[in-house]
Amino acid sequence: MHDASGAFVARTSIVVPGAVSGPLHGLTFAAKDLFDVQGHVTGAGNPDWARTHAPARHSAWVVDRLIEAGATLVGKTVTDEISLGLLGINRFHGTPLNPRAPDRVPGGSSSGSASAVAGGLADFALGTDSGGSVRIPASFTGLYGLRPTHGAIPVDGMMTQSPSFDTAGFFAGDASTFEVIGNLLLPATEAGTSPSELLVASDAFATADPTVREALQSVLHLVMQAVPGVRETVLAPDGLATWCVNQRLLQAFEFGQTFAEWIDRSNPTFSFEVASSLVRAAALNESDVSAARLLRASVRARLDEMLGSARVLCLPTSPILPILRNARLSEMRKAVDRIVHLTCIAGLTGLPQVSLPLAASGGIPVGLSLIGPRGGDRMLLAFARRLAASATTRPV
Amino acid sequence: MHDASGAFVARTSIVVPGAVSGPLHGLTFAAKDLFDVQGHVTGAGNPDWARTHAPARHSAWVVDRLIEAGATLVGKTVTDEISLGLLGINRFHGTPLNPRAPDRVPGGSSSGSASAVAGGLADFALGTDSGGSVRIPASFTGLYGLRPTHGAIPVDGMMTQSPSFDTAGFFAGDASTFEVIGNLLLPATEAGTSPSELLVASDAFATADPTVREALQSVLHLVMQAVPGVRETVLAPDGLATWCVNQRLLQAFEFGQTFAEWIDRSNPTFSFEVASSLVRAAALNESDVSAARLLRASVRARLDEMLGSARVLCLPTSPILPILRNARLSEMRKAVDRIVHLTCIAGLTGLPQVSLPLAASGGIPVGLSLIGPRGGDRMLLAFARRLAASATTRPV
Repeated sequence: MHDASGAFVARTSIVVPGAVSGPLHGLTFAAKDLFDVQGHVTGAGNPDWARTHAPARHSAWVVDRLIEAGATLVGKTVTDEISLGLLGINRFHGTPLNPRAPDRVPGGSSSGSASAVAGGLADFALGTDSGGSVRIPASFTGLYGLRPTHGAIPVDGMMTQSPSFDTAGFFAGDASTFEVIGNLLLPATEAGTSPSELLVASDAFATADPTVREALQSVLHLVMQAVPGVRETVLAPDGLATWCVNQRLLQAFEFGQTFAEWIDRSNPTFSFEVASSLVRAAALNESDVSAARLLRASVRARLDEMLGSARVLCLPTSPILPILRNARLSEMRKAVDRIVHLTCIAGLTGLPQVSLPLAASGGIPVGLSLIGPRGGDRMLLAFARRLAASATTRPV
Repeated sequence: MHDASGAFVARTSIVVPGAVSGPLHGLTFAAKDLFDVQGHVTGAGNPDWARTHAPARHSAWVVDRLIEAGATLVGKTVTDEISLGLLGINRFHGTPLNPRAPDRVPGGSSSGSASAVAGGLADFALGTDSGGSVRIPASFTGLYGLRPTHGAIPVDGMMTQSPSFDTAGFFAGDASTFEVIGNLLLPATEAGTSPSELLVASDAFATADPTVREALQSVLHLVMQAVPGVRETVLAPDGLATWCVNQRLLQAFEFGQTFAEWIDRSNPTFSFEVASSLVRAAALNESDVSAARLLRASVRARLDEMLGSARVLCLPTSPILPILRNARLSEMRKAVDRIVHLTCIAGLTGLPQVSLPLAASGGIPVGLSLIGPRGGDRMLLAFARRLAASATTRPV
């Protein structure tokens, strides 16, 4: 496949035809290079990971499921190194193109998957989301993206990062395909099919840059008109910064443990930024995270009660626009810290979140997010389709 | 040049003929890829350093001086990334061969320079030594190596690491060449030409593995017989571990500042171990190092008084044999920490140190070191030549 966007992993050229019939017949998809495809090395965006791992003996559960349903795998896509990153910058494979904003990052770590779908190189794509890695590239490249309820979609055959945060999600360019894929991968649910009330997260909106807030005004009104009731709410009375710190701490503690043995064995090469995260992670121990675990439990309980069985939270996916591709490290760090103030909400709670590509600022996509109750993934997807239909009269 | 040892930087093929006459005429030398050679990029052992730096407009002072004296530059040699490392492991360029112990590391960071001379690919070679980077590879590959008095040999055109520790040193396989080069590069001195007394550093020997101590016994006796007086001494009443910690702290603080702007601008790729050092360094600030500066001043004063104008300290160059090339990261770290317990002595004080290749353990070289008074470099070189002559009857 010709790929001027740098979305695909150059090393591999993988095509697996879909089954001859099925709900996805005729569709193409790409898989982030964290998902196993039988017979191929899962490269995880880092040459030393690829070098030190054998070809996969089985394909990941989600890959098999999609192929059985008729979709054709057309390639594996670039990821931030070993899934660590939210901007889509990869010093080894290059930063995939953001087709909607060519001078800006595509978001990550599922950067190549988002780039491929946004660039028309695949109809949909698999990503992973531990700290925002589907939601942020969906927002930055103008796609529908789902981070499912933690545990709802099997992660067998997907590279582990931080087990209590890891999810397998996906991107699509249109809300119908988005829903069809979700219904195929998600378990049946007894949750409601339509939101009963919209909770507008005022502290989440306050965290966003004015340009982001302004860009989201009209789509926010659209969403408000589509639900029976609307209420403003404060998610974190003590501040989202505390949630952000604790997401980063707990996630780092887990990925520090995940990668420790491999790092000790192979002294891999990393970009400085990824190595920095790993160094800080390696210094953490149980006593550093015990308070964070208590906070996480209270945040979960708070949001479960807040959302009940059919309420939906509304917030910006990212508080900032995608940064420039050639940003300095210090700018990258500030951007990631800003972003995790919002991605930590579904991260800490394990709740499902969709990012809707229904807004833009000066042509640059701006995602609006909906967080649903635990297991309410299908409700979110159906609601997204309904919103897309009502938005078609008002393209961005 | 054919180079199966991996000592030379593959990227470059640099030959600069020496002047048609001069004291070094007919000799060949190699320069660590931290020394500028006019018209060539100084690569510093890291591809991103090479990529982000322009070709040198002038050659380093030492390179010019050697070429003017008739020596022919036959290439630039592999270094640990941006000079950080003591083992000679480079994940980008490969670990140069230790010709005397092929399954073990050559020592670093002047790894390729030591490998080239020990393997007969050059008569002598330039290295740099901030924390032990000439002394350790000299010991591990069985060469004469000098870390000069800090400031004695100009470092113009040599990559800066930690200015208050950085020195330009060199390796030679025989003591006569070693002395000739030194006399060419070192300033004239009024210090004595022969040691008045040998101080055997008992705590330094106690730090070494039994195999190292045993290997050094006979050469230690040789040195003791070559001086008018011998005395045992304790260098660090509070323990060499304290000196080691403070060397590492002060050196890291300086290299953290040296590389901060470049890292922020280019988010370079590093091996995890090098990135770890840089991450820790970046976290240091003035208040972290103020106590270390006081300790350094007191160590300097103590050793200056101890050595007077003509006493010489004797100690193992390294407390351990070179580790295996395929060591794990945790083993690499333990080795480096052990080594700095001894290299910190000349590091903190700025005193000159030579490593003598006059011992071995099971065929693996073991260096014995002499530390002289400030400015006593020429005395050390002359003494080394005298010791080499008396050792010829007892080859190792």
